[in-house]
Amino acid sequence: MEKKYIIPKFKHMLHGGDYNPDQWQAYPEVLEEDMRLFKLANCNEMSLGIFAWAALEPEEGKFDFSFMDKAMDDIYKAGGRVILATPSAARPQWLAEKYPEVLRCNERFERMSFGRRHNHCYTSPAYREKTAIINTKLAERYKDHPALIAWHISNELSGECYCPLCCQAFRDWLKEKYGTLDNLNHSWWSTFWAHTYTDWNQILPPSPMGETSVHALRIDWRRFVSHQTADFMESEIATVKAITPDIPVTTNMIPGFYNAVDYRRLNKNVDFASQDMYPQWKGRDPDDANVAMYAALQYDTARCFKHKPFLLMESAPGLVNWFQYNKLMRPGVLEQASLQAVAHGADSAQYFQFRKSRGSAEKFHGAVVDHVGDETPRLFREVQQVGKRLAALDEIVGTMADAKIALVHDWSNKWAIDEAQGFQKGDKRVIPTLESFYKPLWKRGIDTDVIGFEDDFSPYSVIIAPMLYTVSEELGEKLKNYVKNGGTLLCTYMTAMVDENDLCHLGGFPGAGLKEVFGIWNEEIDTLYPEDTVPVTADGKTYTAVDYCEVIHARGAEVLATYDGEFYKGMPAATVNSYGSGKAYYLAFRDKGDFTDMMVERLLAEKNIASAFDGALPQGVTAHSRTDGDTTYLFLENFTASEQTLSTALCWTDVESGEKLCGTITLAPHKTVIIKK
Amino acid sequence: MEKKYIIPKFKHMLHGGDYNPDQWQAYPEVLEEDMRLFKLANCNEMSLGIFAWAALEPEEGKFDFSFMDKAMDDIYKAGGRVILATPSAARPQWLAEKYPEVLRCNERFERMSFGRRHNHCYTSPAYREKTAIINTKLAERYKDHPALIAWHISNELSGECYCPLCCQAFRDWLKEKYGTLDNLNHSWWSTFWAHTYTDWNQILPPSPMGETSVHALRIDWRRFVSHQTADFMESEIATVKAITPDIPVTTNMIPGFYNAVDYRRLNKNVDFASQDMYPQWKGRDPDDANVAMYAALQYDTARCFKHKPFLLMESAPGLVNWFQYNKLMRPGVLEQASLQAVAHGADSAQYFQFRKSRGSAEKFHGAVVDHVGDETPRLFREVQQVGKRLAALDEIVGTMADAKIALVHDWSNKWAIDEAQGFQKGDKRVIPTLESFYKPLWKRGIDTDVIGFEDDFSPYSVIIAPMLYTVSEELGEKLKNYVKNGGTLLCTYMTAMVDENDLCHLGGFPGAGLKEVFGIWNEEIDTLYPEDTVPVTADGKTYTAVDYCEVIHARGAEVLATYDGEFYKGMPAATVNSYGSGKAYYLAFRDKGDFTDMMVERLLAEKNIASAFDGALPQGVTAHSRTDGDTTYLFLENFTASEQTLSTALCWTDVESGEKLCGTITLAPHKTVIIKK
Amino acid sequence: MEKKYIIPKFKHMLHGGDYNPDQWQAYPEVLEEDMRLFKLANCNEMSLGIFAWAALEPEEGKFDFSFMDKAMDDIYKAGGRVILATPSAARPQWLAEKYPEVLRCNERFERMSFGRRHNHCYTSPAYREKTAIINTKLAERYKDHPALIAWHISNELSGECYCPLCCQAFRDWLKEKYGTLDNLNHSWWSTFWAHTYTDWNQILPPSPMGETSVHALRIDWRRFVSHQTADFMESEIATVKAITPDIPVTTNMIPGFYNAVDYRRLNKNVDFASQDMYPQWKGRDPDDANVAMYAALQYDTARCFKHKPFLLMESAPGLVNWFQYNKLMRPGVLEQASLQAVAHGADSAQYFQFRKSRGSAEKFHGAVVDHVGDETPRLFREVQQVGKRLAALDEIVGTMADAKIALVHDWSNKWAIDEAQGFQKGDKRVIPTLESFYKPLWKRGIDTDVIGFEDDFSPYSVIIAPMLYTVSEELGEKLKNYVKNGGTLLCTYMTAMVDENDLCHLGGFPGAGLKEVFGIWNEEIDTLYPEDTVPVTADGKTYTAVDYCEVIHARGAEVLATYDGEFYKGMPAATVNSYGSGKAYYLAFRDKGDFTDMMVERLLAEKNIASAFDGALPQGVTAHSRTDGDTTYLFLENFTASEQTLSTALCWTDVESGEKLCGTITLAPHKTVIIKK
Repeated sequence: MEKKYIIPKFKHMLHGGDYNPDQWQAYPEVLEEDMRLFKLANCNEMSLGIFAWAALEPEEGKFDFSFMDKAMDDIYKAGGRVILATPSAARPQWLAEKYPEVLRCNERFERMSFGRRHNHCYTSPAYREKTAIINTKLAERYKDHPALIAWHISNELSGECYCPLCCQAFRDWLKEKYGTLDNLNHSWWSTFWAHTYTDWNQILPPSPMGETSVHALRIDWRRFVSHQTADFMESEIATVKAITPDIPVTTNMIPGFYNAVDYRRLNKNVDFASQDMYPQWKGRDPDDANVAMYAALQYDTARCFKHKPFLLMESAPGLVNWFQYNKLMRPGVLEQASLQAVAHGADSAQYFQFRKSRGSAEKFHGAVVDHVGDETPRLFREVQQVGKRLAALDEIVGTMADAKIALVHDWSNKWAIDEAQGFQKGDKRVIPTLESFYKPLWKRGIDTDVIGFEDDFSPYSVIIAPMLYTVSEELGEKLKNYVKNGGTLLCTYMTAMVDENDLCHLGGFPGAGLKEVFGIWNEEIDTLYPEDTVPVTADGKTYTAVDYCEVIHARGAEVLATYDGEFYKGMPAATVNSYGSGKAYYLAFRDKGDFTDMMVERLLAEKNIASAFDGALPQGVTAHSRTDGDTTYLFLENFTASEQTLSTALCWTDVESGEKLCGTITLAPHKTVIIKK
Repeated sequence: MEKKYIIPKFKHMLHGGDYNPDQWQAYPEVLEEDMRLFKLANCNEMSLGIFAWAALEPEEGKFDFSFMDKAMDDIYKAGGRVILATPSAARPQWLAEKYPEVLRCNERFERMSFGRRHNHCYTSPAYREKTAIINTKLAERYKDHPALIAWHISNELSGECYCPLCCQAFRDWLKEKYGTLDNLNHSWWSTFWAHTYTDWNQILPPSPMGETSVHALRIDWRRFVSHQTADFMESEIATVKAITPDIPVTTNMIPGFYNAVDYRRLNKNVDFASQDMYPQWKGRDPDDANVAMYAALQYDTARCFKHKPFLLMESAPGLVNWFQYNKLMRPGVLEQASLQAVAHGADSAQYFQFRKSRGSAEKFHGAVVDHVGDETPRLFREVQQVGKRLAALDEIVGTMADAKIALVHDWSNKWAIDEAQGFQKGDKRVIPTLESFYKPLWKRGIDTDVIGFEDDFSPYSVIIAPMLYTVSEELGEKLKNYVKNGGTLLCTYMTAMVDENDLCHLGGFPGAGLKEVFGIWNEEIDTLYPEDTVPVTADGKTYTAVDYCEVIHARGAEVLATYDGEFYKGMPAATVNSYGSGKAYYLAFRDKGDFTDMMVERLLAEKNIASAFDGALPQGVTAHSRTDGDTTYLFLENFTASEQTLSTALCWTDVESGEKLCGTITLAPHKTVIIKK
Repeated sequence: MEKKYIIPKFKHMLHGGDYNPDQWQAYPEVLEEDMRLFKLANCNEMSLGIFAWAALEPEEGKFDFSFMDKAMDDIYKAGGRVILATPSAARPQWLAEKYPEVLRCNERFERMSFGRRHNHCYTSPAYREKTAIINTKLAERYKDHPALIAWHISNELSGECYCPLCCQAFRDWLKEKYGTLDNLNHSWWSTFWAHTYTDWNQILPPSPMGETSVHALRIDWRRFVSHQTADFMESEIATVKAITPDIPVTTNMIPGFYNAVDYRRLNKNVDFASQDMYPQWKGRDPDDANVAMYAALQYDTARCFKHKPFLLMESAPGLVNWFQYNKLMRPGVLEQASLQAVAHGADSAQYFQFRKSRGSAEKFHGAVVDHVGDETPRLFREVQQVGKRLAALDEIVGTMADAKIALVHDWSNKWAIDEAQGFQKGDKRVIPTLESFYKPLWKRGIDTDVIGFEDDFSPYSVIIAPMLYTVSEELGEKLKNYVKNGGTLLCTYMTAMVDENDLCHLGGFPGAGLKEVFGIWNEEIDTLYPEDTVPVTADGKTYTAVDYCEVIHARGAEVLATYDGEFYKGMPAATVNSYGSGKAYYLAFRDKGDFTDMMVERLLAEKNIASAFDGALPQGVTAHSRTDGDTTYLFLENFTASEQTLSTALCWTDVESGEKLCGTITLAPHKTVIIKK
């Protein structure tokens, strides 16, 4: 593995975040103080102009870059660099007033009025034209400014629009995809309830005002929305690349596996990925290790979009203001959280925002500089400390995890599962199931990738693809070849029930050729009430099935576990099948965690996959690594509030202090120690 | 009692269900396999064309009957018969596109776009014209086909429309009903809050966009919707009766006392009734006996709409896909459920649907033929078994229960109760209260009718009319005469508070002359919080009042029970009054079940009403009978998962095997034994 | 203190309520019976014409006053007086049909259709013109009628309208308030998310169709709605005052601190205040003392709007019909509830309504005359008893509480808190917090005022202002001077975080100069989950913090309590600071009640504030007083269902019987004894 520098012009860990001097034009003393505090906070980066369109272009065609000129210069003078935003995430009132088409229509097909944050149509030619003009102005003005190191395209792209232009774009996208109405009708199985389309113009997006029942239409709409969002973003990229071809572009993602946009599609044409992160530390789940695990899973996903380091583009230095209950961030947690991102491949710790707004919606969201306006608050000191630590990590910039195991997660697959009637209504817990397979890896300190259907499977000894409901014939073939050539594949209940058009596979599940690979037939699937369980026996131990139990028949596979209750008592609950040079595991039920843990342990042992750290990891402590191929940097992270002592048979070097650490390594509460061999 | 054959052309128990070959036109091998499996499944009937309009008339005025010709012929060749649907339940896209008036307006008066299942205006002349055309085509084409045995008019008629045409039809219906605005204003008590109507055009249906507070308007709207739904259906009946006057017509009802249409009105002009049924076996209530009881209550209601056998038009051979949690159907349950319908008067067991759809909304709903496509699944074998048993029941076709006790249930009465402010908001548990009186009858194996206000009361020794809130002077007179002539009437709290226009009776409750019949005055009614109870004493035993306690005064009646708590301690809680040759019982409170049970037992004893089975019935076992006047056919049904042994002093003959059963009869788990004397 | 007679023409306690003879025009025998029952019920007042517009003006410009002429005469003949309503609270159908602009638009900007109760635009010139005409007609016709004693303007003014006229009126109001868009943009901090307004016409009210995120816009909208509601009412007042300048005007308020209208603004220009009251006696909180306390708090608030006696304009003689569960009113409770209002300053007990409606929405709402139509019901006798007691209280009419302690409650402040993101979402329990400070005063029988920001602070020894989030520089100065001059001020967490425009105070909280007054700096505020608590220690005792814990630093203040848990363990939880001649207390956390109780006791002791009753008050018993400056009238109120005996060192005179009460006073269950020294 070689280092991949995502920001070639600045090979340091970035420390900074969103800065909105446009809010403080009437307070020149504040702007001056900002620069003093920027340095004092050990920052080296600012993200500028994200919501500044109204300030940059107060009237159509009248531009005012004065505040941004000053900010660019001031930041550079203070030793900082700038990631410059295209301001499309919040358009000015005058634009909405003059070109109503830029305002979205809601899912009832009603034109919204101006308001909130995102509320612009991604299809509107007027909006694309206006963003192109302002983006071009920005790029031309700052293309040679020494502070400029990257472009931040728009912000947290999200949402959808049901305007006539979007409806037509959807039809065009469908025409492109299906070619003929016959194909579309077959794929959508529109004969059901006499929904056969006889004219492209009959197609409307799914809406509470009309069609809600055609699953494939709903899934295609989600795919189109992802496409159109990305297409809009790509039109923005084109405007800045035309002028600054060497400045990398990125766009920041909403955390939590944001459901409405396929982030794999969105990241296809950026230079590197950026992830925002707002974990609910000390949340309703009091165990911060679980919170950390979920953040880690998202970071591992973000890293694999481009298989490169990424930026932690936004995080809160203090409380988040939009949870149901917004607790204070506990002492030490900001440092722990910032270094966690770096452990998983971030080359930054950035915040939203540098200075707290005085008014409006987010005036209490944590910021580097609080309303009191100086360096006295506790959290300012915690920001300083993050900056101090990042400054010592230059050698890690550009390195990456080298994972031998991958989890599979696909947006379309989740949409299809959540749409499906049968099983249970609504959320079928796709993401928590992904987490349940990630957890045994995280707690063992195993570096893990999270990949999609189009990724190369060959680097991985083991692939775990839970709830792989949607399997095209092509993907079936790819999985078959992966196993045939020696890979170990683990799938679960609901595997390969539908194809890429949400049509059920005929001839028995799992379809797409996977019955043979797994050596089983899945006859039917039982859905349990939340209060019900079914015992499962394996190797004399008893486990507990919840939610889903498939009634499967072994047709060649070895039975690893059997049901010990219900009318399917004695039938297989988990199997393994040798296929070609590889193995295919099938888990027919959802478990409470211990069976999954046991299975993951078995796979790791079989394939000799181990943590980069040689010692045992106490509860709440994990280890993740980054490497340039030669040196491996290991992050030992303590997510508990107590001191933890780790044993190692080796001697390590503390990356920051250069100190030698042999035999035992002690982690203070919430502390992360970064070592190398 | 004489046998009533609802399908004169085919005097067998029907076994089959919805068949949608239009979904599989591109799969000729599937269509062929369907016929093999039809025979293998012991089916003898298919319901055709229910959602086939788009296939039958792909363009306006262009018809294609080829697939239906083939299906009619194939089914007949396979020994089956066809119930042919008018396809109005799901209109084609082109129809909605060309005639937007066929699309409903929602309760906000907004025109919906095409989608889902039902979404057509029952008033639209265009829709009535187009259905008349396609219905006529179908009738003309198949009028002489030997497979055709009945018409299935539309499907699960439901919903409502707020379009201008419907608003006008509502006004016309009101004009017809009230004659003058003065009458309407008085009935609606519109002086309250100055709502007096001074022009018919001021009237709009109740809507969140306007009027929500005039109860009588809301109840009249529900009545109008029922009328208009039936009127649309009757316009369809006319089209097919014109061509096939001898083919009986029916329409299938949504289960669960579907609230939005008065099913008694809907069934007025069909030849026989049809009931769909989707019990939640092994539901959140783990006792299947309760689930069975609720289904039984619905069957007894359906039978009494026409006082004839009915069809079980739809049921799921496997899981239902629209519950919150969709469990597998347990082994044996399909047979038990199918025979239960027959026990209560169904002359069929029919399924939705024969072959599982490959895509769209209901692709996982249980079907005779699963996606695997052959006879291997367990549930296919269970369908076979149902067919086998039904085939042996020819002699029962056309027979009926001969009930001496009736429950009263009326849709308008329920609407009026649920609308009422006072008591508690929203659902006041009318249906569960009906169930609470049905339960003691069901568990004793008493054949029971469920009737409406217009039924003949004279066949019944006992009439139980719980929560009979709405009583016109005319109904009051009818009840009075029923008691005077020797009938036993049992009513409860809330009796006769309003008249048929939802105007309170003046002069004291119960109104409409019933104070005299019951010999009481109801001064006021206390509503309890769910967590509260009031003790009630009767014959030295203590019972528990919940939800409602009326403070009544005995004015001639004998007191059967008294309150033992609250400020009405010592006042009457239940009474009986001799009136003419009969008796009138009044239960002033809602109980937890044991008081109701005791009262029902008392009534049965007083009037010598007993089960057709002479022995005791264990918990979860019931007995229901059908008779042709001579022979009584008794269904002994075991809804438990254990074997049950019943004692009898008689000798019975097993209808299917001809075997003699004397002394004891053993029921395997989930088994139904059908015997006659 | 001098007596203030709010109704100079009738110096008696009023007993009566809403009377709607327009509903009973077709029942002349009922109208006659009404007068007999009016006298029998010991009533002396009727509120006429509240919903009678449709009867008074059945067609535009055609008037019919016959039923009202008769009612005015009949009531006067029966010894009664009339409060005459302007009928604007429910406009006729014809008015809405002819002038659609009078119908409101909802928050989605959609025009509503006719329906419900309030549904009229307060801005509409047509509506204002039509109300002026009918009001003028009424005033001219009855200006010299001897029965007329006051005007009841409209009814329970409430709701809001988003029509174009209201949107424009909102803009005009904003222009008036802010002068320039620059000022508005700064106050609304509209640079956040590029919301800068560049044209007044870009402004729309907050709406789910557009802007929801600008807090200050939302708060200003609430202020505008309050203004416009009052402005409409004031236009009505002008019409009647022009003709009957000496007849006082009032408008009745919805109980429960109705959130949508600032009642302090609404009452600015009436002659006296009127409060409706519907306590949920025997509610889900089984302790009627808590229910009574909440009612008392509202009465004390209503009295202070004008610092005069007020009318209890509506209450239910029996059950309320719009709770989730509507229990019967228990025996004795009506008398207790009616006298409670009088104890707190009401000069009446009035009901909605005299005779129960026969139909429509409120047909089961308690009334003086029930559907049975005569005097037999229990509740009629209870009404008689209330009338009997009020008739003996002439000497109390016009007297008032003389409170030395005041609570502060402000509508805008509550809106700002509830809007705020951070803390927790939505309801932050402003009213329950006010109650928590009222409770220790109520149970000690301390007369208390509830005041706003513009009231004179000087009469009060102690001012308690919980959650005083919104503090302008001007209010900060006023509070500072109050303390400086010897006042005792108690504030809590969240004090002075924003100014009157919802802009955060810079330089540290509490802002507006209050850091100095309290001698503290509030660094940050922790929000707890509902299941969490933090121990707090004071004087060796442990208390429990819930919901909110501020991390504050004493900067001069004396620490009264410290946190004993969380990362802020050992930091101050409550402080007191001497400032000028006064003291400023700061409670940094929300407690479970015992700490608040202890603090209130401390303040009362420090400032020598005591109850007008000298003896101890048992649990559920309270004492409140009214005085004319010379004689103090003391209401001893027993809200328990048991007899209570009170000890006193004094001799008192029973106001009604003239009896001497020395040493002990016995209160029967639910009884109120009214005594004077």
